[in-house]
Amino acid sequence: MITIGHFINGLSVAHEGRTQDVYNPATGIADKKVLLASKKTVQEAINAAQAAFPAWRNTPVIKRARVMFKFKQLLEDNADHIAQLIGQEHGKISHDAAGELQRGIENVEFACGAPQLLKGEHSRNVGPGIDSWSEFQPLGVVAGITPFNFPAMVPLWMYPLAIVCGNTFVLKPSERDPSSTLFIASLLKEAGLPDGVMNVVNGDKEAVDVLLTNPLVKAISFVGSTPIAEYIYTTANAHGKRCQALGGAKNHAIVMPDADMDNAVNQLLGAAFGSSGERCMALSVAVAVGDAAGDALVEKMQKAMTGLSVGAYDESSNDFGPVITCQHKDKVVGYIDSAEQQGAKIVVDGRHPKVKGYENGFFVGATLIDGVTIDMDSYKAEIFGPVLQVIRVDTMQQAMQLIDDHEYGNGTCIFTRDGEAARYFSDNIQVGMVGINVPLPVPVAYHSFGGWKRSLFGDLHAYGPDGVRFYTKRKTITQRWPSSGVREGVSFAFPS
Amino acid sequence: MITIGHFINGLSVAHEGRTQDVYNPATGIADKKVLLASKKTVQEAINAAQAAFPAWRNTPVIKRARVMFKFKQLLEDNADHIAQLIGQEHGKISHDAAGELQRGIENVEFACGAPQLLKGEHSRNVGPGIDSWSEFQPLGVVAGITPFNFPAMVPLWMYPLAIVCGNTFVLKPSERDPSSTLFIASLLKEAGLPDGVMNVVNGDKEAVDVLLTNPLVKAISFVGSTPIAEYIYTTANAHGKRCQALGGAKNHAIVMPDADMDNAVNQLLGAAFGSSGERCMALSVAVAVGDAAGDALVEKMQKAMTGLSVGAYDESSNDFGPVITCQHKDKVVGYIDSAEQQGAKIVVDGRHPKVKGYENGFFVGATLIDGVTIDMDSYKAEIFGPVLQVIRVDTMQQAMQLIDDHEYGNGTCIFTRDGEAARYFSDNIQVGMVGINVPLPVPVAYHSFGGWKRSLFGDLHAYGPDGVRFYTKRKTITQRWPSSGVREGVSFAFPS
Amino acid sequence: MITIGHFINGLSVAHEGRTQDVYNPATGIADKKVLLASKKTVQEAINAAQAAFPAWRNTPVIKRARVMFKFKQLLEDNADHIAQLIGQEHGKISHDAAGELQRGIENVEFACGAPQLLKGEHSRNVGPGIDSWSEFQPLGVVAGITPFNFPAMVPLWMYPLAIVCGNTFVLKPSERDPSSTLFIASLLKEAGLPDGVMNVVNGDKEAVDVLLTNPLVKAISFVGSTPIAEYIYTTANAHGKRCQALGGAKNHAIVMPDADMDNAVNQLLGAAFGSSGERCMALSVAVAVGDAAGDALVEKMQKAMTGLSVGAYDESSNDFGPVITCQHKDKVVGYIDSAEQQGAKIVVDGRHPKVKGYENGFFVGATLIDGVTIDMDSYKAEIFGPVLQVIRVDTMQQAMQLIDDHEYGNGTCIFTRDGEAARYFSDNIQVGMVGINVPLPVPVAYHSFGGWKRSLFGDLHAYGPDGVRFYTKRKTITQRWPSSGVREGVSFAFPS
Amino acid sequence: MITIGHFINGLSVAHEGRTQDVYNPATGIADKKVLLASKKTVQEAINAAQAAFPAWRNTPVIKRARVMFKFKQLLEDNADHIAQLIGQEHGKISHDAAGELQRGIENVEFACGAPQLLKGEHSRNVGPGIDSWSEFQPLGVVAGITPFNFPAMVPLWMYPLAIVCGNTFVLKPSERDPSSTLFIASLLKEAGLPDGVMNVVNGDKEAVDVLLTNPLVKAISFVGSTPIAEYIYTTANAHGKRCQALGGAKNHAIVMPDADMDNAVNQLLGAAFGSSGERCMALSVAVAVGDAAGDALVEKMQKAMTGLSVGAYDESSNDFGPVITCQHKDKVVGYIDSAEQQGAKIVVDGRHPKVKGYENGFFVGATLIDGVTIDMDSYKAEIFGPVLQVIRVDTMQQAMQLIDDHEYGNGTCIFTRDGEAARYFSDNIQVGMVGINVPLPVPVAYHSFGGWKRSLFGDLHAYGPDGVRFYTKRKTITQRWPSSGVREGVSFAFPS
Repeated sequence: MITIGHFINGLSVAHEGRTQDVYNPATGIADKKVLLASKKTVQEAINAAQAAFPAWRNTPVIKRARVMFKFKQLLEDNADHIAQLIGQEHGKISHDAAGELQRGIENVEFACGAPQLLKGEHSRNVGPGIDSWSEFQPLGVVAGITPFNFPAMVPLWMYPLAIVCGNTFVLKPSERDPSSTLFIASLLKEAGLPDGVMNVVNGDKEAVDVLLTNPLVKAISFVGSTPIAEYIYTTANAHGKRCQALGGAKNHAIVMPDADMDNAVNQLLGAAFGSSGERCMALSVAVAVGDAAGDALVEKMQKAMTGLSVGAYDESSNDFGPVITCQHKDKVVGYIDSAEQQGAKIVVDGRHPKVKGYENGFFVGATLIDGVTIDMDSYKAEIFGPVLQVIRVDTMQQAMQLIDDHEYGNGTCIFTRDGEAARYFSDNIQVGMVGINVPLPVPVAYHSFGGWKRSLFGDLHAYGPDGVRFYTKRKTITQRWPSSGVREGVSFAFPS
Repeated sequence: MITIGHFINGLSVAHEGRTQDVYNPATGIADKKVLLASKKTVQEAINAAQAAFPAWRNTPVIKRARVMFKFKQLLEDNADHIAQLIGQEHGKISHDAAGELQRGIENVEFACGAPQLLKGEHSRNVGPGIDSWSEFQPLGVVAGITPFNFPAMVPLWMYPLAIVCGNTFVLKPSERDPSSTLFIASLLKEAGLPDGVMNVVNGDKEAVDVLLTNPLVKAISFVGSTPIAEYIYTTANAHGKRCQALGGAKNHAIVMPDADMDNAVNQLLGAAFGSSGERCMALSVAVAVGDAAGDALVEKMQKAMTGLSVGAYDESSNDFGPVITCQHKDKVVGYIDSAEQQGAKIVVDGRHPKVKGYENGFFVGATLIDGVTIDMDSYKAEIFGPVLQVIRVDTMQQAMQLIDDHEYGNGTCIFTRDGEAARYFSDNIQVGMVGINVPLPVPVAYHSFGGWKRSLFGDLHAYGPDGVRFYTKRKTITQRWPSSGVREGVSFAFPS
Repeated sequence: MITIGHFINGLSVAHEGRTQDVYNPATGIADKKVLLASKKTVQEAINAAQAAFPAWRNTPVIKRARVMFKFKQLLEDNADHIAQLIGQEHGKISHDAAGELQRGIENVEFACGAPQLLKGEHSRNVGPGIDSWSEFQPLGVVAGITPFNFPAMVPLWMYPLAIVCGNTFVLKPSERDPSSTLFIASLLKEAGLPDGVMNVVNGDKEAVDVLLTNPLVKAISFVGSTPIAEYIYTTANAHGKRCQALGGAKNHAIVMPDADMDNAVNQLLGAAFGSSGERCMALSVAVAVGDAAGDALVEKMQKAMTGLSVGAYDESSNDFGPVITCQHKDKVVGYIDSAEQQGAKIVVDGRHPKVKGYENGFFVGATLIDGVTIDMDSYKAEIFGPVLQVIRVDTMQQAMQLIDDHEYGNGTCIFTRDGEAARYFSDNIQVGMVGINVPLPVPVAYHSFGGWKRSLFGDLHAYGPDGVRFYTKRKTITQRWPSSGVREGVSFAFPS
Repeated sequence: MITIGHFINGLSVAHEGRTQDVYNPATGIADKKVLLASKKTVQEAINAAQAAFPAWRNTPVIKRARVMFKFKQLLEDNADHIAQLIGQEHGKISHDAAGELQRGIENVEFACGAPQLLKGEHSRNVGPGIDSWSEFQPLGVVAGITPFNFPAMVPLWMYPLAIVCGNTFVLKPSERDPSSTLFIASLLKEAGLPDGVMNVVNGDKEAVDVLLTNPLVKAISFVGSTPIAEYIYTTANAHGKRCQALGGAKNHAIVMPDADMDNAVNQLLGAAFGSSGERCMALSVAVAVGDAAGDALVEKMQKAMTGLSVGAYDESSNDFGPVITCQHKDKVVGYIDSAEQQGAKIVVDGRHPKVKGYENGFFVGATLIDGVTIDMDSYKAEIFGPVLQVIRVDTMQQAMQLIDDHEYGNGTCIFTRDGEAARYFSDNIQVGMVGINVPLPVPVAYHSFGGWKRSLFGDLHAYGPDGVRFYTKRKTITQRWPSSGVREGVSFAFPS
């Protein structure tokens, strides 16, 4: 049985201590275990990062960027292996894991542009003979705490940018699928990153709390559920750290009567069920405007869903895999049950999927629920499973009101052909990431990712330009040179 | 006796309630009182701001900017009156009050550039036929809580920018000198600002706590002492608001052996004693590198200080005025006493100034203390009075260590003629605002203001480019238009 | 009879010399004459500008910007008088002249943001201990040569930005309607601009050629017809100057079958006939896609045009006024004649308008021509009169091809409700300024104005961000400070 | 004997035609010849580029950038081979060639950041319901014409950025050392660039004139001598192309009395003699302020120069190699002769170097000339050889005047420890690239390269941010969506 350890100061570290099982969710078997770092181990990682900081901070930015250029290349060279590691522990199908990695690599590509991104602003003559400029200096040691659902991508949102800005890093990935994360971090060493600049500790709340309270840690980036995000944010702030904490979501798509319905259905399939719906940007609610649209949507969706197949990660014809744990499977099924009990119609029922050879896997089939209302439990919560719920309203205004009333404000989308409807929607909707005929409006790496309302705690969004600002602190210098007579000297000739 | 009320929804408001005396610190007489807003009154202001938000948000930015253009003009037209209001309640000399107002106006000038500042980023073809762009949308109702020492300038750091970005505002200024703040706010109405966009409530902790907890308030900007800043920051965050809270300072100037000493002394005079040292950027510690520099500095400083005169605000030949309250005077004098008791040398003693005709005023004279060490109480605390302390060290490295070890990191300065020393200092010192031969390195309005360490809580600095980012939230739109056949239509000709 | 002179070095100047009549185009009477500057007079203006340059260049940018703040205020205070001056010599109706001035003022507002706009880029540690930054420094004396059709606005595109960037300026406005231009320039002096920074010379080719060849002039901004623009551009370049020269236009609107036709007609009325069509952004060709759209457009347009009235500038119920000269009237009428002769249908005929009391004015009525083809003379040329021509095509692709094949590429517009059609159009069309349901897509002052193909000669567009780059030259500084031992000095203590 | 051909549409092409010998300047033997493209061949390359444009333009920018990521990797993998190719034909020593390549690679790294660099500006609500944004679209086919002295680096300043912006490219490198250029271009194909996007034609004026006049070519980037630059610039402009043409230089270093003289001498050695002085940024004039500085400089320089060795490219202990041709050697020697004849003192004489085994090579040894005056021919011209001339002046003002009076304004440097002198110099000197204790102030790739005065023709500098602007044209879109009733529709429910 494999024991997964940590990566500290350039070395694999496996101190004795508590462990937790790591499952293959397709088989339901735990064939690995992961060490849960003690306070001391986390402290060791922080110290390594702190020790590496002064030299790394003073390394010219282009040299820091070149580590990222090389890192990108290594990620591409090792893409298949990484996808396999993800599949084994998370369960997502290889093509999906490859897609995840690709989105992560885009953030490395963005980090390669650090020399441009870190430019400060220079003003000549803010007063007579006085110049002023700003510099964006690194913070020191920063930490990331990341979720199970994107073990490669979400960490890659954080540390490439943090590191290229001159910081050193301690990452605590999800303890449920740590192997790909750990392997990727080791590639940074191969890319030439000095030891101690990047560190990974596996662990649970004990580890997290060290990161949140240790005064050497200057910033925390977190992605996870809203209650934890809120805890992380307030605790980090109370300990004098800057923090950005991304939480839950309930992403609605409005389907307008004029939408290209075949296109909408095609887009919704992937957006609702891809990665078993375990994405913070998953589209879990379709709001049909008018019953005609609603009926057409449900009918076409039902038909399209017959083609979906659920199964193990290494069969590329599968569309999506199991959910992450047995408990989570029960939770997802419970939400479907509750919807049924509360009066919704289960149009396509994924509660009892048959996956041959994987009878003990944590599978839930693609599920379509019609007639959902806003008072149902299944509507209020983030289900995080392959479940698409349909709500019907009479007008676009009602659809928008419903979205704005929801606690979360991560992503949303409208399907329409009409310029005016799209513009009104994107302008007014209280959601941070908006798609117009784009069901998963995850911003590309050179823009920034962030929800509104209780989907994000913090001023700045993740990655992209906001990420650069988050991982640096502004210093403003104002300079005047009083004359020292050197310039005006009339003659430096030897006296005769 | 004048009673000072509030400014809510475009009207002067003076509900019954608790009051507090407002003193003229030069005479020591309280000839006005200020109403302290109840919860209900603060709520009324918030509601007015909320009601004004939708229309203001949708007003094109150039129209919002034009209110600021007009506001600038009105501030200039009323400069003398504003300086007088400041002088009467704060005590600062007219020329100093005029300077304060001018720095405030610079922030209005910056706000006039909002159309440029609010531009988002547009990317064509982030994927085939897919475009993406960002918008910086206003937050809603935002609040400012400001200190007594700059009753005009510090509020002007905040609300012009917040408002021009499309937010509506509730300001709670210092209850010790509210009149200039209130008068200035009324000019916004005259400049054409719709009622409710700007509101001012006077008050104390009761009012503050409503602002910190009311869910309609989306952001808090604060300037004050560090303990309060920390309270504001953690409370606001815990209530789901973004917050930037600026706290205390202890600003050191390093005087290098190669400095132009006459210039340094001349600069230090204003930086240490101007506005009675009641500035968060006041230079309160001079660190002399080498005893030769130290002796020269103390000697020249002592001589130069004989020319300083302290007195009432309306005599323009005065250099600075009283401190803000009798209690504060006692506190400043107490720090001088303690320095003396702990072994420092009081070179120039301002504890018993004579100000003819103002025997009951809260005056402290300019004070110079030599031989200060880092364990003295007077060194550790922010005195906020006209007191310059001199510390002597042997090397520049020691001087920098001393600055980096201090709890605060607001401003600092080096006096030198040497390019290398200046660059090493500005690059490495752990302070947010750095002067090179500039003793008060307050960034101009088109850069941003912010300290490091415990001088600022928050990710983003005040005013300037960071201010724009603070007062807006990022929305990222991703757009794809599926073909609807309109474009490709082969023929729209009438069928023959 | 009034004689209009020059404005040089802060003074009105009227040297003896050649003159030219200035007409009131509504009455057809020349009641003023304008002096045409000799070489010597132009040289005098250039010399004044050159003499004023060093001090102005070194004036901190915020002080330069404050002249613009004041200038904006004076323009607003004098708006009625300026509109009257424009009306008397150009003929445009007061409300149109006021609109022109307002667009000009927007450029002054943009110039007020110069401190932000002139920021250079600062990079710390481009190598070990090496910093680098860019500065955008002014060029020196720059010149503007502007057309009759916007005597206030087009000059205001140029000199506020040029001046606020630190340059000094010589303007040669159109000799046909110079009074408003000259008056406006005089307001700059009142706003506090030092003498010599802004100068105006009236004149013809003799004056222009001095500006194009004098080595003290570093840059030329020009707006006019394409043949002249090309001459200006190549001559200026051959004399070592940077140049941006804006030429002619033939702006097409595509009217799609799904367009909101009433809205389109309403927009086209102003865009085609406003200011008698004497605008480089005038929409002079409507391309109807499909005969249904074409028929509807012509029918509704014809009806709507019955409400238009042509007349003198001072009757605000008039929609537009005369064209600029008698010769120009003949030319416009000639193009209508030629269209008729070449087979087009004159649907609404403006060749013989009746304007009571102004029988000698240079009036042409609003004219609508249907059935135009691309081989007609009236299609190929820029008519610059109140003439809208309709072309009919079968598909949007044909409409776009037609636009792309035209020599000019200034502005264009599509009327549609369809997101995909709009996006395809704006992405692919070979035109610099594109409107989607916006018939006059003149960029706001904080964007930049410029056509493609033979509508603009030069790399950079006019005003806005490109204007800032045009009026400045980049300087890049790279800095390393070798240690001089000042910083590292172990001890500066007195030897014992 | 090797015949060097062209690279067109992804293929090596070697049409019959005129040829020119390619020498190894160390041996003086011509062992290769290069084909000189006919008009037809150049036209073929242009046509290939034009054909490749539409698809390349529509390729998402991140995909274009990824070709550059791969290209960087291939350049690094092939660095030794490239350095060898450069050495064989140009003569520069391997370490120098490797350095040249590295500077070129930096431009590829910058090009990898294209997604960030190409962002346009988006403004919501420029009017009610009206949005506006800018796009930076590619130009089409652009051409580069590059000099012999940096056969790898200067082309890499141009085409990576041009191509990543969406343009297609035709390069005409120097016919004297074309092999490295051609080899590097072939790596782009290996990196995945579609055929036709990059093309290389060897040739002379016949080829150049096709590029300058063919209407499909939209822009020209040139680096070479000033007379040719001027011809290129005016010809390209007259044919409707944008152009940036970089010409000659005469770069002065001011040596101040307070300079760290050992450091200055050390820096000057490389800056004056590196690459045989055949660099447009070579420091060819040292201006000593005061005779003490002058004497010290000459003495230390003379001593330091004894350690320099000149020889063939493949002996890495050599400091620099031969000049490019026999004729050029004669020209350089002729300038040394003329200085001597006109009264200067040849302190170190490189006219007759002995390079064992390379007696026919085009070698000139490092030469130091003292007592130079501004009327000497050797001062006025750009020598482009390993010759450092020393001028002595009394004051810094005189030194600056001398620099400002020179026709060229490419680079300059000051050696000083004094902050004030450095700032005054960098602020006021009329030169585009300024070093403070940096003798070759070539901007890093993320800034831009460009001289002032007659060293650059054009508005925009080469590479970096200005390069992006040069290789794109601005399009501004203004958009309003009239309501089509889709959004407001009260009910889309089926009628009952």
